[in-house]
Amino acid sequence: MDIEALATGILAGERRALARAITLVESGRADHRQSAMALIERLNAADHGRQAMRIGLSGTPGVGKSTFIESFGMMLTGQGLKVAVLAVDPSSARSGGSILGDKTRMEHLSREKNAFIRPSPSQSHLGGVARRTREAIGLCEAAGFDVVLVETVGVGQSETVVAEMTDLFLLLLAPAGGDELQGVKRGIMEMADIILINKADGELKSQAVRTCADYAGALRLLRKRPQDPEGFPKALTVSAVEETGLAKAWEEMQSLTEWRREAGHFEARRAGQARYWFEAEVREGLLARLKREPVKGALERMALEVEAGEVTPAAAADTLLRDYLGG
Amino acid sequence: MDIEALATGILAGERRALARAITLVESGRADHRQSAMALIERLNAADHGRQAMRIGLSGTPGVGKSTFIESFGMMLTGQGLKVAVLAVDPSSARSGGSILGDKTRMEHLSREKNAFIRPSPSQSHLGGVARRTREAIGLCEAAGFDVVLVETVGVGQSETVVAEMTDLFLLLLAPAGGDELQGVKRGIMEMADIILINKADGELKSQAVRTCADYAGALRLLRKRPQDPEGFPKALTVSAVEETGLAKAWEEMQSLTEWRREAGHFEARRAGQARYWFEAEVREGLLARLKREPVKGALERMALEVEAGEVTPAAAADTLLRDYLGG
Ligand SMILES: Nc1nc2c(ncn2[C@@H]2O[C@H](COP(=O)(O)OP(=O)(O)OP(=O)(O)O)[C@@H](O)[C@H]2O)c(=O)[nH]1
Ligand SMILES: Nc1nc2c(ncn2[C@@H]2O[C@H](COP(=O)(O)OP(=O)(O)OP(=O)(O)O)[C@@H](O)[C@H]2O)c(=O)[nH]1
Ligand SMILES: [Mg+2]
Ligand SMILES: [Mg+2]
Repeated sequence: MDIEALATGILAGERRALARAITLVESGRADHRQSAMALIERLNAADHGRQAMRIGLSGTPGVGKSTFIESFGMMLTGQGLKVAVLAVDPSSARSGGSILGDKTRMEHLSREKNAFIRPSPSQSHLGGVARRTREAIGLCEAAGFDVVLVETVGVGQSETVVAEMTDLFLLLLAPAGGDELQGVKRGIMEMADIILINKADGELKSQAVRTCADYAGALRLLRKRPQDPEGFPKALTVSAVEETGLAKAWEEMQSLTEWRREAGHFEARRAGQARYWFEAEVREGLLARLKREPVKGALERMALEVEAGEVTPAAAADTLLRDYLGG
Repeated sequence: MDIEALATGILAGERRALARAITLVESGRADHRQSAMALIERLNAADHGRQAMRIGLSGTPGVGKSTFIESFGMMLTGQGLKVAVLAVDPSSARSGGSILGDKTRMEHLSREKNAFIRPSPSQSHLGGVARRTREAIGLCEAAGFDVVLVETVGVGQSETVVAEMTDLFLLLLAPAGGDELQGVKRGIMEMADIILINKADGELKSQAVRTCADYAGALRLLRKRPQDPEGFPKALTVSAVEETGLAKAWEEMQSLTEWRREAGHFEARRAGQARYWFEAEVREGLLARLKREPVKGALERMALEVEAGEVTPAAAADTLLRDYLGG
């Protein structure tokens, strides 16, 4: 693997080099991992100073994420911006990755020279969803992309993961009436900087406006965060199909980012995220030892005893640490 | 330390034995820890079959937690039930523990023979907030208490900790108008089984009713959990001072618990919690190694380099694990 050539290619903004580099960070092979780390160190040392706006985007299936990315991405490339699209899909039940099949829904964007769309890898390749995506973001940034969109389907912890690696977080919701309004997972609203009610068009428009007001109300019930200027987080309506509200949404993202830059929150968040991922990698490395035999088998055996009340959690933990983890 | 005598005393429901045992589990001394574990094992082996209703109670300062516990606790002891009150206060800025000074607010309950109130220990004694409280709950249960109330001031992660050791979780809120409705920390609503709007009396009554409706609305925006029967989580108004709404709240707690018992959620939750704490103790034991020198110093040094972008999170973690943690 010619790391130097790959690094040069990426810094020159070559899509093929970028694609190959992402494949490298996605690989589970130990030698690939070594190369990936060398590449990333190499790019880090290049001190390119490029900084993309990293945008997380979450929403349940069918809410219109792909359609939104297509329209929103086309608007941005139309303004001369380079746009990369990545996906985090930890469950990855969908064969072949989440965006791949969607390239049909991103018909124009996928043919756009200033856009780069990367499907999430199939499950077999997964070697740390968070690390993979986080490193891919860094590669896109090094390749000179202005905006990196990270899509995630709202399952479990994936939003948290995405929020910890992006500068701002969008939650895409569908218009809903009355009883249907149960769809937002608790704790997700917590992360949103901007809630976008999509499909605000045709028959759904008035419903979208009402839903938007409902969520605006719900957002007001939550405590203000230091990283939010007056009026944020906010709820807006958009139509990915009719391409309305997109410019306004982009304006809000820019003004929010601007404010955070000036207030020092932007850099602080990035530094905090870097520390967060460092500590997470250390912890994961340490905890990975629990997944190796014979620790793993012993842990499960004892967990069953604990569940059954035969031994208390503390005593069982004590035994395990002493007998299997050299503590 | 005569563990056998202590165990016998607790099983006989003696308050002095219970108080001494809690002091033991709170201690940070290694020999005390050994005794505490022996005691807990001994009680576990006694197979007493006693099961309290473990109720978590959270709310910001001044919302009326102490007053509520006084009124609610007196109502329960009036019905012949034995009530224990514990506190989780991880920040413990308040000197001498959070309930101690409050005993004046629990004037009647603190003199009630069927009630047991335990202040949270001062910070110096803290040796794992979660473990201490969880084990104290177990001791109260072994001592034959019917209801164990675990109070926490809503700071950071303490609600999560309490929710993971209780059977149901109450969130106490104050009536608020319009702009004031920003007080609920995101993610907390997620845990609540019942939201109680306190101070629904006098001038505040109509405001409390409106606030209650607002939160009922907000709860409907959240996704239904499998452990909830129709209509839960719900919001109710109470007045701790006028003692209204308390019987209704208790009724709801009982019917919720009943439903969960029949549906198997109650036992499943307890078993899940036991496993959770076992795994948490194992992880904590392992991660405690990061807090010992020289690992600790190296971690902090490298974290600063990571924050400054001099080295990437993955590379830094790799180095730390290799050089300091025998990986
Ligand atoms: N009316 C209307 N329909 C839309 C809009 N955006 C998306 N849709 C439709 O909603 C359906 C789902 O859109 P997608 O973009 O595939 O949704 P998704 O969130 O990517 O779904 P998954 O990839 O399955 O998670 C499609 O039929 C779209 O045409 C919109 O703004 N208005
Ligand atoms: N009107 C009214 N006042 C109440 C009620 N409950 C409590 N209060 C008052 O609210 C104030 C705070 O009550 P506490 O019970 O000390 O509140 P707390 O939540 O325990 O506060 P901290 O211990 O500081 O976290 C006191 O002045 C109480 O008298 C109620 O039901 N109605
Ligand atoms: Mg899609
Ligand atoms: Mg109090």
